[in-house]
Amino acid sequence: MPLTKFPFPAMPVIEGVRLNAISAGIKNNGDDDLVLIELPSTAKVAGIFTQNAYCAAPVTLCKSHLNQSSAIRYLLINSGNANACTGKEGFAAALGSCQSLAAEVSVEPERVLPFSTGVIGECLPVKKIENIMKPLVANVSEEQWEAAAKGIMTTDTCPKGASVRIYLDGETLVVNGIAKGSGMIKPNMATMLAFVFTNAIIEEPLLNTLLQEAADQSFNRITVDGDTSTNDSAILVATASSGILVDSDRSPNYLQVKQAIDQVFQNLAKSIIRDGEGATKFVTVRVEQGKSTNECLQVAYSVAQSPLVKTALFASDPNWGRIVAAIGYAGVADLNVDAVQVYLGDVLLVEQGGRAQSYTEEDGQRVMDQDDIIIRICLGRGEASETVWTTDLSHEYIRINAEYRS
Amino acid sequence: MPLTKFPFPAMPVIEGVRLNAISAGIKNNGDDDLVLIELPSTAKVAGIFTQNAYCAAPVTLCKSHLNQSSAIRYLLINSGNANACTGKEGFAAALGSCQSLAAEVSVEPERVLPFSTGVIGECLPVKKIENIMKPLVANVSEEQWEAAAKGIMTTDTCPKGASVRIYLDGETLVVNGIAKGSGMIKPNMATMLAFVFTNAIIEEPLLNTLLQEAADQSFNRITVDGDTSTNDSAILVATASSGILVDSDRSPNYLQVKQAIDQVFQNLAKSIIRDGEGATKFVTVRVEQGKSTNECLQVAYSVAQSPLVKTALFASDPNWGRIVAAIGYAGVADLNVDAVQVYLGDVLLVEQGGRAQSYTEEDGQRVMDQDDIIIRICLGRGEASETVWTTDLSHEYIRINAEYRS
Repeated sequence: MPLTKFPFPAMPVIEGVRLNAISAGIKNNGDDDLVLIELPSTAKVAGIFTQNAYCAAPVTLCKSHLNQSSAIRYLLINSGNANACTGKEGFAAALGSCQSLAAEVSVEPERVLPFSTGVIGECLPVKKIENIMKPLVANVSEEQWEAAAKGIMTTDTCPKGASVRIYLDGETLVVNGIAKGSGMIKPNMATMLAFVFTNAIIEEPLLNTLLQEAADQSFNRITVDGDTSTNDSAILVATASSGILVDSDRSPNYLQVKQAIDQVFQNLAKSIIRDGEGATKFVTVRVEQGKSTNECLQVAYSVAQSPLVKTALFASDPNWGRIVAAIGYAGVADLNVDAVQVYLGDVLLVEQGGRAQSYTEEDGQRVMDQDDIIIRICLGRGEASETVWTTDLSHEYIRINAEYRS
Repeated sequence: MPLTKFPFPAMPVIEGVRLNAISAGIKNNGDDDLVLIELPSTAKVAGIFTQNAYCAAPVTLCKSHLNQSSAIRYLLINSGNANACTGKEGFAAALGSCQSLAAEVSVEPERVLPFSTGVIGECLPVKKIENIMKPLVANVSEEQWEAAAKGIMTTDTCPKGASVRIYLDGETLVVNGIAKGSGMIKPNMATMLAFVFTNAIIEEPLLNTLLQEAADQSFNRITVDGDTSTNDSAILVATASSGILVDSDRSPNYLQVKQAIDQVFQNLAKSIIRDGEGATKFVTVRVEQGKSTNECLQVAYSVAQSPLVKTALFASDPNWGRIVAAIGYAGVADLNVDAVQVYLGDVLLVEQGGRAQSYTEEDGQRVMDQDDIIIRICLGRGEASETVWTTDLSHEYIRINAEYRS
């Protein structure tokens, strides 16, 4: 059974952030595939991008525009075509789409950030985007968050949004985010796009830091299939449309604003996992008592990416031997397996190098039958801990990826 | 469609190597699950083992016996139970099985090497082994290679053997090998056992080197699912029952003997891939023009282990975008994608950062429709090259691993 999806949340207005979604005919099925997000002139923008050497034309252009312009005004996002591995022609198409929008709204093309997601290896049909530019621009509004979240979907089965509001200094801090992603999901960004907006006033050096830290504990901690895409991008926008100022990590508001941003990123990341291709389980792998963050992540990903662990999860089989094998080959130097404890939910599976004395198959089965499963691994050698989120590996994953041309 | 399996080859006698396979009732289905291989007193034995931190009790004991004794006389192998993650009790059971055999044949227990493969986390039923020791020992013969290959199977669908004979100095050099393995297959040994025997005279330092080199270009170059097991072991035995002497890498016979050994290892490794769980394609990933062996392997495994590439292979879909994405995230520093060329069989897919001008979908499809597929990646930055072998990822893989308790 597919996991239950969370309903799209209520998204409050962020003054000056106006959105529209439209069908440009890039997708074959007539669904919306072109999204425009207009930012107020006061907005500051930070971005992080895929580390894939074959990064797509729009990613290259985004980085260049972020470097050239301190006043980004538009995010132009298409789904249905990734414009990746398309050489010079692809780059010209990405630039053309920015120029077309820039001409329509009378700004420099450098003030537009382009994003693409969908099929790899086919050039963006820039004509289709040019043809629909007028109505796309004309009908932006502050309410269309869900439409925008739908317009950026590819294999996603539901739109993904997250929102946090908190009261600070007599004003309301708002953080809204939308994201897409379902397969090709792996640490260091996934086949995903994420756009997060806050009405706080945050200048760029700090905005970049907040983005990197939030992504490190969210999008960089999820894995569906271990594949990293060519198009991953995450954007954090601070519109400065409230009076809530965060000018350093010593600001009185810093911690609350950071927590709100982190929360939205984590909720988006988790909603990507919940909608992971073929997912029937939401799996949290938590590694504790490591010597370093690094070795905790090694163990966590080794377990989270093991096809044998993932098929056992799909079968709701408390097959702890596969978990233990994945811990064992994670490559932690001098791991003393006698000191390792492994829990499935609240049930102790493994201690002193073998099955726990107290373990019963019934206890393991009771946890495995749930949709949300926590695998907790205590390495018994230090103070570091890390958490990653993943899914099981199901027939449906195979079906989707054998049929879909990504 | 499952791949066509090669028939079990004719295996000539190697004087003094006597085998037997029997059902001890460790497997539930009554199939043979206990194999004994007796070696002549002149035999020299080398072994390499899993690097999994949770290595199984028999692996620990094997290493210890190889260190203690220079005259190994028996290999005792059970399938159906891996005796892994079984703590002190498991170690006692492994030792008990060696002692039981040793008493029956009147040798020191250190002259027995034990091997186990099958379910993880359950202690070896040593009583069942003791009960059947007499007929196991009594009925060894030099002909029972195929029976032994069958007796070590778990999820394997066919027994795996390879044999090479060459004429040297008026004598016949024989190299015979049997192996098992099908899932949990990954570089640095797999869920596999391999036993290779030659009638040459090779002393131990050189025998170890030949084993390591042969394994590096065979079992350490295959991947089904990226999981490394707790029980992998590969053994090379030189019986000295011919007069063919190889006493150093400058021996006149050295190169021919090495090639024969390498050939048997590679054939066994490839037969494991052909029988990979759910495999419908035999896939060779060859990376050329790298700066180093290491970066060639990084790229090769990134492609060979990508679930998206593997599901595309299952679908016979020439989805080159996924191959390119996997090359891009392999982590090669400063990769100039404009210099990279990717071939599917003889068809150029990708050059200059995008789809090759000459490429047609029909050409790609023609190659993809075959059972044996070669993906060749030219990095355009050096002289190193490496090859790995893998399978596709199919519904059948999921079914097998969701149903089987490993």
